[in-house]
Amino acid sequence: MSSSNLSFSSRAAHRAWLASQAILPAGFRVGTTSLSFTPAEVAKTAKMDLTLVVLDRPTSDFAAQFTRNSFPGAPVLIGRRRLAEPSVGALVVNNKVSAVCAPDGVAVAEQWCAAVAAALGLQASQVLPNSTGVIGWRMPIEAMRAALPAAVASLGQRSLVDAATSIMTTDLYPKVRRAAVGGGSVVGFAKGAGMIEPNLATMLVFLLTDLAVPRADLRRMLAPAVDASFNCMSIDSDTSTSDTVLLLSSGQVPCPDPTAFQHALEQVCRDLAEDLPRNGEGVHHVLRVQVSGAPSEILARGIGKSVVNSPLFKCAVCGNDPNVGRLVCAIGKYLGSSAPQLDLRNLRIALGGLPIFQNGSFHLDAHAEAALRSHLEQAELYASVGPEAGIFRPPVDFPRHERCVEIGIDLGLGPAAATVIGADLSHEYVSENADYRS
Amino acid sequence: MSSSNLSFSSRAAHRAWLASQAILPAGFRVGTTSLSFTPAEVAKTAKMDLTLVVLDRPTSDFAAQFTRNSFPGAPVLIGRRRLAEPSVGALVVNNKVSAVCAPDGVAVAEQWCAAVAAALGLQASQVLPNSTGVIGWRMPIEAMRAALPAAVASLGQRSLVDAATSIMTTDLYPKVRRAAVGGGSVVGFAKGAGMIEPNLATMLVFLLTDLAVPRADLRRMLAPAVDASFNCMSIDSDTSTSDTVLLLSSGQVPCPDPTAFQHALEQVCRDLAEDLPRNGEGVHHVLRVQVSGAPSEILARGIGKSVVNSPLFKCAVCGNDPNVGRLVCAIGKYLGSSAPQLDLRNLRIALGGLPIFQNGSFHLDAHAEAALRSHLEQAELYASVGPEAGIFRPPVDFPRHERCVEIGIDLGLGPAAATVIGADLSHEYVSENADYRS
Repeated sequence: MSSSNLSFSSRAAHRAWLASQAILPAGFRVGTTSLSFTPAEVAKTAKMDLTLVVLDRPTSDFAAQFTRNSFPGAPVLIGRRRLAEPSVGALVVNNKVSAVCAPDGVAVAEQWCAAVAAALGLQASQVLPNSTGVIGWRMPIEAMRAALPAAVASLGQRSLVDAATSIMTTDLYPKVRRAAVGGGSVVGFAKGAGMIEPNLATMLVFLLTDLAVPRADLRRMLAPAVDASFNCMSIDSDTSTSDTVLLLSSGQVPCPDPTAFQHALEQVCRDLAEDLPRNGEGVHHVLRVQVSGAPSEILARGIGKSVVNSPLFKCAVCGNDPNVGRLVCAIGKYLGSSAPQLDLRNLRIALGGLPIFQNGSFHLDAHAEAALRSHLEQAELYASVGPEAGIFRPPVDFPRHERCVEIGIDLGLGPAAATVIGADLSHEYVSENADYRS
Repeated sequence: MSSSNLSFSSRAAHRAWLASQAILPAGFRVGTTSLSFTPAEVAKTAKMDLTLVVLDRPTSDFAAQFTRNSFPGAPVLIGRRRLAEPSVGALVVNNKVSAVCAPDGVAVAEQWCAAVAAALGLQASQVLPNSTGVIGWRMPIEAMRAALPAAVASLGQRSLVDAATSIMTTDLYPKVRRAAVGGGSVVGFAKGAGMIEPNLATMLVFLLTDLAVPRADLRRMLAPAVDASFNCMSIDSDTSTSDTVLLLSSGQVPCPDPTAFQHALEQVCRDLAEDLPRNGEGVHHVLRVQVSGAPSEILARGIGKSVVNSPLFKCAVCGNDPNVGRLVCAIGKYLGSSAPQLDLRNLRIALGGLPIFQNGSFHLDAHAEAALRSHLEQAELYASVGPEAGIFRPPVDFPRHERCVEIGIDLGLGPAAATVIGADLSHEYVSENADYRS
């Protein structure tokens, strides 16, 4: 799925590569700042980061995709309305408070947009708000207003590394991907690691381009790009109330080849969709499930999702345990409820390229067991260290490599296929979400 | 859901209560034994337990419900065929090897039935086989045959405690529930804790009665009893390839009141369905989600299942963290994909009886936070101790109480309701399924 096959020996090597990706396209400025506040809901001080992305000139060429959760955050409700606006001039991101189902949440978020707009010489309707953090907490609007001048003063950076860092919550490292097209580029940055301190799984993805692609084309291209990337990925099966993908064009570079642009957009989305689980909370292994020979793409994707969302199989992978019975159990759980009549006689399953199941039964022995275990060990990002004071913490804050646990599932029935990306389940995940207290 | 509200201060107190439940109904005998074998798939010795339940006279009055997983084990495939037989005389259970998708699995399981039948003076078609354990491994038929005389010799116990213990895998304690009806009883015993050493989530439930209820009535009553109990319960969302519920009547006691029998059957099923997650792998808290005001029972159950299967919410509960944002996220995840047009303005949510959400937003403050946390602490079965040598193990092998984390979700839309039982997600679960190696 990823266009690259990188490996990093140190945090410094990873940061150097990030800098090569994070070159801001023409026509944008970014700024960041942070602030302290006391939530109304708990009696302690919290820290929030603010991130601004501002266009040199407002653009009519933008597109967005939002969560399908039935309780969307205020920024999602506002973002949907913004799609009808003639132009946007900036996006603003805050972490720590997601502004989901908070009393008067939409009104407060619109006040925040108005404050940002006033500081930038825009209309409130030209600001795209984005929030990630604790669900139910109210936005500390006064403290955010007070911090706004510092964010505006910092505008003008040429790199997105600070912005990609500023939107992080439980992410271990910033995530930026770039594709060059003609004289311009598509650059995306993303956050999302499962949940946030410890409250919410939110994926925020911002795609910036200087290539002049009209609004209608951007919107037509974004939906399938998101569908084939972020919608084929799961860290812990919990659809956030705030998931957002924004695509903004500054229009500063002509785009003579829309197809090349579309391919670049899709590649950046696919790369980021693999970066997210690789930096998922407590993730030791990334899973890549390639389902083929399916009667429909929906079914192929459903099988892949069932595998990467099976707690049993995720735990086995975490322990480098080639427990392929759990893999078949996960496939059968999905098919038994969704397509119980399917003819499974031609089903073939491989793990790490090694065939393990065909003609209706397993083919396992001690030699296969050793080969499968070796494949899992090769795909491991890190082993647990600790716990220290009862809490497991990841020992690295960069991705050592881009290898995956490779699972092939061929139904032998039809032409449809899908690739689904997922992650294992570890002590670090439980520590992140049970051992820390909000 | 449970008909009782028990608490136990010690393993001995729990065992004394179990003995009061485990009185074998008239017309049955039970026997157990164990054996050692070397699997063909891995180079080490393993232990297996065998359990026999034999009727004094074969009965035509039996019913069964089986897994809907698309890769059912050989015993499930055989059990489905047995439903058409005129009578059955015994059921046999083995753990350690589940006989799922093993080469020649059905043929070997039928050989095993024939061996059991020969030892008991029955036909092979009168034996109901049941297996739970590693998926993909072959049954060690020779070693099992050799152990059969010892199991037959032990037949005749008057208590089901040994049998309920013999079918266990990762269960911490045996599970038996009894309801008296007229001069007879319905007694059920069950196993299932998530997965098995560490391979498979299997629920096996055996319901025995001495009341004379005809086959057609048993089958008519069993489906809704299972639907309202075991089908409303989840430990880790992974549907086993071997789930089986068997109901056998010896017919030795007249049954003048079929309705009373049906209620007793339903009660035993509901009690066992709550016992299973209470003894689920690594479970610190049992969750009881009562959904009401729903337009349909399917929707009510779907909401409850989404809550108890949310890794985020499960982790929060494990940590006694009243992270109610995750609860709303889990509800919205399900409704957003299954009923996106539903009017949610009347939605009310309570945790531990305390209203936390209504009129579209949360109502949270530091006082509510403390009350919610106290409710979670009261429902905790145990706190983590350790890890020792990197592995978390539960510090108790009996249930301290029957309290649940009580979640109320009222959609305010219709007459349908459902109660769903689930469990939290802990380090002990990860240790059970990642830190041990098969």
